[in-house]
Amino acid sequence: MTALAAEDFLAQLHERLGEVVLTDPAAMERYAHDEAEWAAYALPLAVVRARSTEDVRVLVELCIAHRVAIVPRGSGTGLSGGANALSGSVVLSLERMDRVLEIDQQEKLAVVQPGVINDHLREAVAERGLWYPPDPASAPWSSIGGNVATNAGGLCCVKYGVTGDYVRELEVVTGTGEVVRLGRRTAKGVGGYDLRSLLVGSEGTLGIVTEVTVRLRPARPEERTIAGYFSSITAAGEAVAATLASGVVPSALELVDRTCLEAVDAWKQMGLSTEAEMVLLGRTDTPGADGAAEAALMQRCFEESGASFVAVSADAQESEALFAARRLAYPALERLGPVLTEDVCVPVGAVPEMLARIQASAASFDVRIANIAHAGDGNLHPLLITAPGDEAERERAQEAFEVILADALDLGGTVTGEHGVGLLKRAGLGRELSAPVVAMQRAVKDALDPHGILNPGKAIV
Amino acid sequence: MTALAAEDFLAQLHERLGEVVLTDPAAMERYAHDEAEWAAYALPLAVVRARSTEDVRVLVELCIAHRVAIVPRGSGTGLSGGANALSGSVVLSLERMDRVLEIDQQEKLAVVQPGVINDHLREAVAERGLWYPPDPASAPWSSIGGNVATNAGGLCCVKYGVTGDYVRELEVVTGTGEVVRLGRRTAKGVGGYDLRSLLVGSEGTLGIVTEVTVRLRPARPEERTIAGYFSSITAAGEAVAATLASGVVPSALELVDRTCLEAVDAWKQMGLSTEAEMVLLGRTDTPGADGAAEAALMQRCFEESGASFVAVSADAQESEALFAARRLAYPALERLGPVLTEDVCVPVGAVPEMLARIQASAASFDVRIANIAHAGDGNLHPLLITAPGDEAERERAQEAFEVILADALDLGGTVTGEHGVGLLKRAGLGRELSAPVVAMQRAVKDALDPHGILNPGKAIV
Repeated sequence: MTALAAEDFLAQLHERLGEVVLTDPAAMERYAHDEAEWAAYALPLAVVRARSTEDVRVLVELCIAHRVAIVPRGSGTGLSGGANALSGSVVLSLERMDRVLEIDQQEKLAVVQPGVINDHLREAVAERGLWYPPDPASAPWSSIGGNVATNAGGLCCVKYGVTGDYVRELEVVTGTGEVVRLGRRTAKGVGGYDLRSLLVGSEGTLGIVTEVTVRLRPARPEERTIAGYFSSITAAGEAVAATLASGVVPSALELVDRTCLEAVDAWKQMGLSTEAEMVLLGRTDTPGADGAAEAALMQRCFEESGASFVAVSADAQESEALFAARRLAYPALERLGPVLTEDVCVPVGAVPEMLARIQASAASFDVRIANIAHAGDGNLHPLLITAPGDEAERERAQEAFEVILADALDLGGTVTGEHGVGLLKRAGLGRELSAPVVAMQRAVKDALDPHGILNPGKAIV
Repeated sequence: MTALAAEDFLAQLHERLGEVVLTDPAAMERYAHDEAEWAAYALPLAVVRARSTEDVRVLVELCIAHRVAIVPRGSGTGLSGGANALSGSVVLSLERMDRVLEIDQQEKLAVVQPGVINDHLREAVAERGLWYPPDPASAPWSSIGGNVATNAGGLCCVKYGVTGDYVRELEVVTGTGEVVRLGRRTAKGVGGYDLRSLLVGSEGTLGIVTEVTVRLRPARPEERTIAGYFSSITAAGEAVAATLASGVVPSALELVDRTCLEAVDAWKQMGLSTEAEMVLLGRTDTPGADGAAEAALMQRCFEESGASFVAVSADAQESEALFAARRLAYPALERLGPVLTEDVCVPVGAVPEMLARIQASAASFDVRIANIAHAGDGNLHPLLITAPGDEAERERAQEAFEVILADALDLGGTVTGEHGVGLLKRAGLGRELSAPVVAMQRAVKDALDPHGILNPGKAIV
């Protein structure tokens, strides 16, 4: 795009969208990237802070006419660079479209704008005795639109599934500038292709989500928490496998290692025990005597796998502290230096082996790697921590990052369980998918974004 | 296609695929259609009874070269004409690919060929203490490949979801003749577009499924059944709404009317009570005291909505008889004459109103309409029964069919909850979807089936 063409485009943008357009570089900086360390970004031509679907539609119309790329973003908590701005693009922020439009108790669904923060939705529906399960660790900050764009997971996935399992209907501005509704409000429906599921997880590359209808569940029962302390990664991995083989479907099964607990405790002074190498946090929300039996069974699985100590608690406050530490691990580690977050997912039976390989990579590349994991899903988040400004360590971390991806593929896994491909995982995805599948994905992209304006260069190979 | 071109194609088909090719008209007849009454079909050029993915790949290669349409079919129990043969096409039967390839107890998944019958899969995994939930009423006869092609539902959907919720990975022969794997074996994964979900429910129009990996659950607890007998459709509809509002998530919530019960009893002599206008069958599989409390709560919901009699039973045999009657309703009615099966799905709050409108259509068009319904999902199956050979009645039934579709759309519903679009619902789908959504679906079809050989004229508008 020439400077003159850019000027013409910006003039029309100001004329059509007025005060929602930002072009001041200092103001644009915070909209130019997400939280992915080391993913490239540039300052965009402009940032549009849409107030309505119509604002989004007008932007798409202008961008089609001028062949300008649009980079949509929610609250920018992504970890793969999916929302990173491209040179010459417009960043479309949806943070102002933050209203809960409807909560229907009879149909058990909610209709929200994409900028609604996950926790706000959860609180709003809880007031009506309902529950929105998807609970990424970023729930206090991440938006439903961003959750949909990445098909975000979370802690309760192991029993209740991921974001896409709760999306009923989407309002979308398409790559041809139409406003459409994909999916439906009814509990079931098989009319035509499932474009709703296709859009979920497509990182803004197939359409821009401007409204989301999610299904809800009745308020969940109280959970029991079982915390197991292990002196080795291997023993904790065995406890995961034993728990999953026992027939219990835990409502959470999370691993947190000592590095994470120490970082959280140093930050928040929660008085966490940091003596064990690994803590395995299991939960069950089965009510009554059956829940107690499941908790006892998990406890036995932990003990027989070599836990040094196991605590069973129905005390919400005590167990909430442990889970809060789990959720705070990522920001706590970030205080120590730049953190590169992995997101591999392997078959659950391969969790002990994958954890061992991560340890081996930490040793051979001389990189500090902390571990948190949605262990019950096989979804591991090794966190590569580097010292600020240490370029050599950063390079070693990037090498380790690639080896971890290769190990996950070698064990039958995937390069991204829940964070998305964005920019950081494109090379890895190229190793994961066969050439004909890559070609199918490109064909779908070309079919639905014929002008190539929707977040180009992201999500697919 | 000229007669000469057809001859050349058939010669090559015989040469490459030999004994799996049928061309005898009498032998082909039973492969030329599914169970949809009144959906058009023609005899195909040939039927190919594939033994392997390679057979399918070879067929696709030949059909691309000769521009011959392929109509894939499982066991032919579909109810929308999706498997009906087109003139000049090849019907691809997958019934011989009927092996369970793998059951992995640790990962809780099974890998099957598409011709495996639903009940056979359920039995095979039950032997290992596992459960495959999707349970269409056709489970004794329908194949997993057909279930995937239509995203089949069933009785337990209301708590456990539909076929697509259990599909982890598909092996597919694409419209360009490649053998690909879509989705993945891991519990989570967001790498690239969700082509697996796109293929589920696409009725063989985007690719031919040659292998299916499904996730399994631990064996389910025993269920309690609550049977409520009602003297009016309205009262039964109110009981459905009350149950869903109570906070209970039933493991089934099915409506069966007197016409169905009488037809089943006349056929099977099960000694069913046929005095009530409607029977509402609720189930809960919550274990222990909580399950008993849920059953009591459902009982109260039924009674307060005006049930004349409510029976709570933990007796597997007694409750199985009632559910068997529910499953046998369709074949039992077919014994009375041609049955046109509807499959609308409406918001659950609209179930009483939709049932009333169906009654009104029966009266105004003078057509006998029986009702079974997955009431907890708002998925209704009015069954339009006509006398054999009565052309005038058949025409009235077709008019009523269209009015029922229009009523469902008017109430915020869809024209097909679980049976698929096939041929019978294409016009209705055209009324349900907006023009830009129809265009998106066509764009996806063209992208993935560039030669237009995959079951053309089905599934989309």
